[in-house]
Amino acid sequence: MTQTNVACDRHLLGLKQLDKEEIVSILDRAAHWERQPNKVTHLLEGKFVANMFFENSTRTRFSFEVAEKRLGAQVLNFSAAASSVEKGESIYDTVRTLESMGIDAGVIRMKPIGLLAELAEKIKVPLINAGDGNNEHPTQALLDLYTMRKSFGEIKGLTVSIIGDIMHSRVARSNLWGLQKLGANVKFCAPDNMRSEELGEHAPYVAIEEALQADVVMTLRVQLERHDKGFIRSAEDYREHYGLTVERAGMMKPHAIIMHPAPVNRGVEIDDELVEHEKSKIFTQMSHGVPIRMAVIERALA
Amino acid sequence: MTQTNVACDRHLLGLKQLDKEEIVSILDRAAHWERQPNKVTHLLEGKFVANMFFENSTRTRFSFEVAEKRLGAQVLNFSAAASSVEKGESIYDTVRTLESMGIDAGVIRMKPIGLLAELAEKIKVPLINAGDGNNEHPTQALLDLYTMRKSFGEIKGLTVSIIGDIMHSRVARSNLWGLQKLGANVKFCAPDNMRSEELGEHAPYVAIEEALQADVVMTLRVQLERHDKGFIRSAEDYREHYGLTVERAGMMKPHAIIMHPAPVNRGVEIDDELVEHEKSKIFTQMSHGVPIRMAVIERALA
Amino acid sequence: MTQTNVACDRHLLGLKQLDKEEIVSILDRAAHWERQPNKVTHLLEGKFVANMFFENSTRTRFSFEVAEKRLGAQVLNFSAAASSVEKGESIYDTVRTLESMGIDAGVIRMKPIGLLAELAEKIKVPLINAGDGNNEHPTQALLDLYTMRKSFGEIKGLTVSIIGDIMHSRVARSNLWGLQKLGANVKFCAPDNMRSEELGEHAPYVAIEEALQADVVMTLRVQLERHDKGFIRSAEDYREHYGLTVERAGMMKPHAIIMHPAPVNRGVEIDDELVEHEKSKIFTQMSHGVPIRMAVIERALA
Repeated sequence: MTQTNVACDRHLLGLKQLDKEEIVSILDRAAHWERQPNKVTHLLEGKFVANMFFENSTRTRFSFEVAEKRLGAQVLNFSAAASSVEKGESIYDTVRTLESMGIDAGVIRMKPIGLLAELAEKIKVPLINAGDGNNEHPTQALLDLYTMRKSFGEIKGLTVSIIGDIMHSRVARSNLWGLQKLGANVKFCAPDNMRSEELGEHAPYVAIEEALQADVVMTLRVQLERHDKGFIRSAEDYREHYGLTVERAGMMKPHAIIMHPAPVNRGVEIDDELVEHEKSKIFTQMSHGVPIRMAVIERALA
Repeated sequence: MTQTNVACDRHLLGLKQLDKEEIVSILDRAAHWERQPNKVTHLLEGKFVANMFFENSTRTRFSFEVAEKRLGAQVLNFSAAASSVEKGESIYDTVRTLESMGIDAGVIRMKPIGLLAELAEKIKVPLINAGDGNNEHPTQALLDLYTMRKSFGEIKGLTVSIIGDIMHSRVARSNLWGLQKLGANVKFCAPDNMRSEELGEHAPYVAIEEALQADVVMTLRVQLERHDKGFIRSAEDYREHYGLTVERAGMMKPHAIIMHPAPVNRGVEIDDELVEHEKSKIFTQMSHGVPIRMAVIERALA
Repeated sequence: MTQTNVACDRHLLGLKQLDKEEIVSILDRAAHWERQPNKVTHLLEGKFVANMFFENSTRTRFSFEVAEKRLGAQVLNFSAAASSVEKGESIYDTVRTLESMGIDAGVIRMKPIGLLAELAEKIKVPLINAGDGNNEHPTQALLDLYTMRKSFGEIKGLTVSIIGDIMHSRVARSNLWGLQKLGANVKFCAPDNMRSEELGEHAPYVAIEEALQADVVMTLRVQLERHDKGFIRSAEDYREHYGLTVERAGMMKPHAIIMHPAPVNRGVEIDDELVEHEKSKIFTQMSHGVPIRMAVIERALA
């Protein structure tokens, strides 16, 4: 990675840019934070972290905020809906402005793809990607990796099926890069109109029956309104052909786990009864978001 | 009260579920907090409280936030308007998510009635009701009780008239349960289309002239747009028949006080000149919201 | 200034009400804060400051929040879009409510002109104007003065041209009062339909060529939709006749600086290439906002 500015190697743009050692080091540090009995440290006392959300998100912003406060940082929340971005101000100008005010790190979510790498060249404080368009969502994938490692001991050799809207999913992309670096075997499963050809060069598309024969079955949130109607015309169609139903969950291996990045469409991509099923790690994933984000922010600032 | 989970007796769902001793204990503890010369304590250092507002509210959220920060807690604000609830995520999933992230208590406002009791069965951290539909608004009633006790020395034997939209008012319900437990005599006054038959079984509906002959005259916020037009067709009609006008205030007992949960429709349910009149406790009520909420959060967490 | 209540001389309503000594004292104190190596002090520990924005603003609210947190205060954010102001509650009632809850100072932005002076008579805690309609934006002008003093050593004798929508600009008004008190020579430059006759009595309108021959060229944000179409019919027209283009910037004096209160319309009132040009102080201005606001809040509370 070329050193383009001082913060460069403390940015977190995506898992594509991280090597295996860096990923493992973040997972290890998250394990440290998860073990701490005291909630709040003073490690980042006097540091200011800005959560800049140009796209709304409850859970991700909240999870970052808990992580930042547990590290003792001062937290500033910015969301575009209540901002001058409405007045046409560019994302760059906003981020530069917040930087001018003396923030020490920025967590950023936005729609445009590619802009974050440009920002990281120009902005002097470390930036952490909290989701950029359908490109990457690295902290989500890190918490997914953490959950898998905790469930199975190691990631190497696991088979992980990712089912659903691969084309629009930054979660699928970030998991693909991270899982392959750590030696997992990734398979995709999606209807034709939700496939990404580009990602198909890195992992095969398989039928739902094969996808179920994995160690990890990760279903993705489906937003049918985003798609041209193919042969999937409705939520019912989706559930019938690609949904993780109770019946399909019964075909999974005994030790296998169910994952989902949430929020869940109950009864569409996953049946209601499975969300808190014993195989499901969905709320466990969320609880891992905090130590993972502590590790990522500590890496950026400490 | 059946012990359904560990947090059960630290939830605050409504005054209907609290007994007299618990109410008095909260009022006494609020008096303790009101006397403190120092604004901020370290009592809840390292504890995280989430304010989860699935319905907007300025004053209630703000009052809780001041209370939480005075107790030394870390505060996380969530409001539905900027959240994935828009994307159809259920309230349950959101609350479970925030719980997974390690919050220690949740303050929650929402429209659906009955859901809070369900949540309290499933969620392991204490939940505090900040208003649920037209069911209850217990901290508002507690601050009203506190204001009355401070004005008159004790609540037993007081006559309290509640005037206005009884049907839609969670404030009326919570006050009814609390006042009767503490031995006050409650009367309602409302046009036909704003009455609740169910509540009428617990306290009588009286004419405005009789309602004025009370120790406490509590007017409620009127939202005419919520009602089928009965004989009250306009704000002017409402003021003429049920509004606390300067003239009607002149008919109140010399020692009697005026209360209102706010925000006030000046010139509809209460005349402009009365809002800061010497009989009015309206802004005093608001100032009592902070120590009451400190007592309630302390009860949940300490 | 008549002493109307205890907080009176700690309010900051506008630069029109401040004398030269007070302005200089704020600038000096900001210089003190800018020099501090540690970000966070404990000066205002236990004090609560409410940011009450009845009009949205990213940068101003954020800048105040950083300042308040660096001073060690507890910060409460209120914005009207998520508030009961939607339900028709008046600004006065809201501010009185927040005061009742025990805040120690309020930062307030709102549309109505003249209301702030009324509020300051009635509210007992100090209020700081964060922009009121097209009247004043005193902290913006203070940070502008600070930037000019830092660039040139002193303000006395400087020529400052303010170009753009003078009529709607609270920045122009606040700068006019502050600059003239400190001995600068102010000139305005604006198309006919953006001129204020009232302000024209205090400083001359000049042609763009003359405006460029200043020590400071301050361009203002243009919102064409606010204006009756005069001879300026489009953003292109505006740029052609009043925009600070690269060509026009080349006609400025060698030592002269470019300022803008931001957010910038790149390619309308100022060319893209000039925003981070060596002559431009635009992001420097923003960085000065924090120490200026620290000085103003300290003045209000310490």
